[in-house]
Amino acid sequence: MKEHPVPAPGDFDRMWAELAAVGRGAEGGYHRHAWNGADTEARAWFVQEACARGLDVRTDRNGNLWAWWGGPGPGAVATGSHLDSVPSGGAFDGPLGVVGALAAVDELRRRGAARSRPLAVVVFAEEEGGRFGLPCLGSRLTAGEVSPERVRGLTDASGTTWAQAMERAGLDPEGIGPDPEALARLDVFVELHVEQGRALEDTPHPVGVAGTIWPHGRWRLDFTGRADHAGTALLGGRRDPMLPFARTVLAARELAGRHGARATVARVEVDPNGTNAVPARVTAWLDARAADGDVLEKVVAGVGEAAEAAAREHGVASAVTGESLTPLVEFPEGLRDRLAAVVAAAAPTPRVPVLPTGAGHDAGVLAAHVPSAMLYVRNPTGVSHSPREWARPEDCHAGVAALADVLQDLLARPVGEEAR
Amino acid sequence: MKEHPVPAPGDFDRMWAELAAVGRGAEGGYHRHAWNGADTEARAWFVQEACARGLDVRTDRNGNLWAWWGGPGPGAVATGSHLDSVPSGGAFDGPLGVVGALAAVDELRRRGAARSRPLAVVVFAEEEGGRFGLPCLGSRLTAGEVSPERVRGLTDASGTTWAQAMERAGLDPEGIGPDPEALARLDVFVELHVEQGRALEDTPHPVGVAGTIWPHGRWRLDFTGRADHAGTALLGGRRDPMLPFARTVLAARELAGRHGARATVARVEVDPNGTNAVPARVTAWLDARAADGDVLEKVVAGVGEAAEAAAREHGVASAVTGESLTPLVEFPEGLRDRLAAVVAAAAPTPRVPVLPTGAGHDAGVLAAHVPSAMLYVRNPTGVSHSPREWARPEDCHAGVAALADVLQDLLARPVGEEAR
Repeated sequence: MKEHPVPAPGDFDRMWAELAAVGRGAEGGYHRHAWNGADTEARAWFVQEACARGLDVRTDRNGNLWAWWGGPGPGAVATGSHLDSVPSGGAFDGPLGVVGALAAVDELRRRGAARSRPLAVVVFAEEEGGRFGLPCLGSRLTAGEVSPERVRGLTDASGTTWAQAMERAGLDPEGIGPDPEALARLDVFVELHVEQGRALEDTPHPVGVAGTIWPHGRWRLDFTGRADHAGTALLGGRRDPMLPFARTVLAARELAGRHGARATVARVEVDPNGTNAVPARVTAWLDARAADGDVLEKVVAGVGEAAEAAAREHGVASAVTGESLTPLVEFPEGLRDRLAAVVAAAAPTPRVPVLPTGAGHDAGVLAAHVPSAMLYVRNPTGVSHSPREWARPEDCHAGVAALADVLQDLLARPVGEEAR
Repeated sequence: MKEHPVPAPGDFDRMWAELAAVGRGAEGGYHRHAWNGADTEARAWFVQEACARGLDVRTDRNGNLWAWWGGPGPGAVATGSHLDSVPSGGAFDGPLGVVGALAAVDELRRRGAARSRPLAVVVFAEEEGGRFGLPCLGSRLTAGEVSPERVRGLTDASGTTWAQAMERAGLDPEGIGPDPEALARLDVFVELHVEQGRALEDTPHPVGVAGTIWPHGRWRLDFTGRADHAGTALLGGRRDPMLPFARTVLAARELAGRHGARATVARVEVDPNGTNAVPARVTAWLDARAADGDVLEKVVAGVGEAAEAAAREHGVASAVTGESLTPLVEFPEGLRDRLAAVVAAAAPTPRVPVLPTGAGHDAGVLAAHVPSAMLYVRNPTGVSHSPREWARPEDCHAGVAALADVLQDLLARPVGEEAR
């Protein structure tokens, strides 16, 4: 580390501006998805920044990047997030936790912070599932929560498999899978993230602490009808899958509203998708979330029943297939309170908000294996997964400072004592 | 012609089997769209067959293929159809009229039919609009019913323009546009086509004659909302365009049913189409048809109102844009009756069915400029625009024989007398 000069405090802004140019479409949204050009460029950017700081960068078997300050574990304190986006996503979801982590390392070095443990900055692969449909893929593989066979076979919109995409990126798809050594090195994981609601906006706090993550998942809805001519097929004789699909979209919204849950149908594929051909099949994905697992189950079951009833009425077959399900994540209370106390020392009032969320995160996946926590940076509009996602620069700086404070506190504990 | 031997009567089956292999996907449907690989192969196949018969093949300025028996016009009798398909389309819609035309030429030669006029077999380009969204493009351009500027700028799903696609096919996109000379050569046009309903199935007739073509068109429906996070955005604060889209799909069906019309939403594009991102925009296409122009107008206006009301309720903007509209086509009665009389001579009963249809055809576009008519071949299921589209081989042979009879009758009239 000694031969690498410490960047000045303003370096967060430089890094942010540089990364902001990578993978942004004409509409202002980001298109960084596992192993595509923009994702590869963003990952290369990270490697360069980490190396410039003298960090030791390694790619693990699942394509996650680890930049070590002090060499790999044990007893390590880890922080980081992801660089990939949803299609046409925002600049903050993911990158704030990566750029923020690098800036926090800079801040710790400037402070000459005492450090009894190694620190890792991690970039998890394909957190959004924007290309292969399954979110938190890098962390799920590492945690052994999805089978390598299934992941290798996942396909993107053009039919390219995960295995092919990984190979083209120069990585070995045969090596993916559970990585207990990687997890065993970690004593604690803290993720800095933009808030994806606007709860902080109504408080004086630029930074909050994560409470629970709602149980959430993705279900594929298949409606299989019969292709036909849009001009000549009599309405009564059709088996048009678009109609039960439309009914199911409305039913999902109604059920979510009734149960205080969230249900969204945002992805649709129509086969053959020709203007004048009644579709043979409509496939859609339901994203559903609720504060409570039982409520979530009730909503998804209700959507399935609505789909089946509407499909039957139109002579269409329907099927609901679960693709991912993340149960309620409760971050450990002790760690959460410790973060809140550290953040409170620099906060405008001592009561740092603790926020539940409906959004999934790598920290939520890791939480089952490593004590994990999250810090949220205020988002004035609450909008996320959108080019309009935003956080004020001064709030981002406050988030970096809070992360540095939290890491400094955790790193100071001698190895042997649990960091958290 | 003399040096080219006349194929035996069974040659229809050989041609049919050869062409059936071109552009068929694993699911059994065809994927021949303007200038793509399969379309190019099908066109090359046609050129080869026409040349083997000594026909003089020319590509016109709009990419339509003309195979002349007797050199280009005037006073020509033309027949033919198209080789492109809807996405995952059937084998018959289009190709039956092309292969049937070549087989009819063979039959006329075998008969040594008297011929006072030239005969043309035409393959119109992009009849289905499967790639660029606008149907009957080859015939519409020729007829001057769509502006060359608009066509050049049409894009396919990958963003390739019509102009680029045509250029890559070795044709000059700057030359497209109205072709009054081509139309002036034609005295009459007859298209053989698979029936796209099952009216003939309830009769002893393998072949019917076209009555009217319903007024029909395509309208683009744009719903513009606001991208957001599917997990964190409160239901009440969303501007989710999928919801008014779904309501509009159901409204279109309801309105069509109430008015005895047809309305189909079969093509949808969602932006960004990510599972966990509330869409920014949903674009869909309405295909609507009715026996009567006023009814059609009423249905489309009703769909527009439903879209607007549902959009407003969800804070979403909606817009309806007409993309194509074909008014009622009434094929000339005299020509129609003449065809029916010729077909009746070989038919099981003298009353050859005259069938109205909701399907658009190149013959429908030409009808405004050249006396035109159509023959339909029985379709036992009535299904079309689907891999399940089918006609019995013996009915196809009957269709070819009827077309040969009709062409023989029209060709025998001396030039100077109107063929029809």
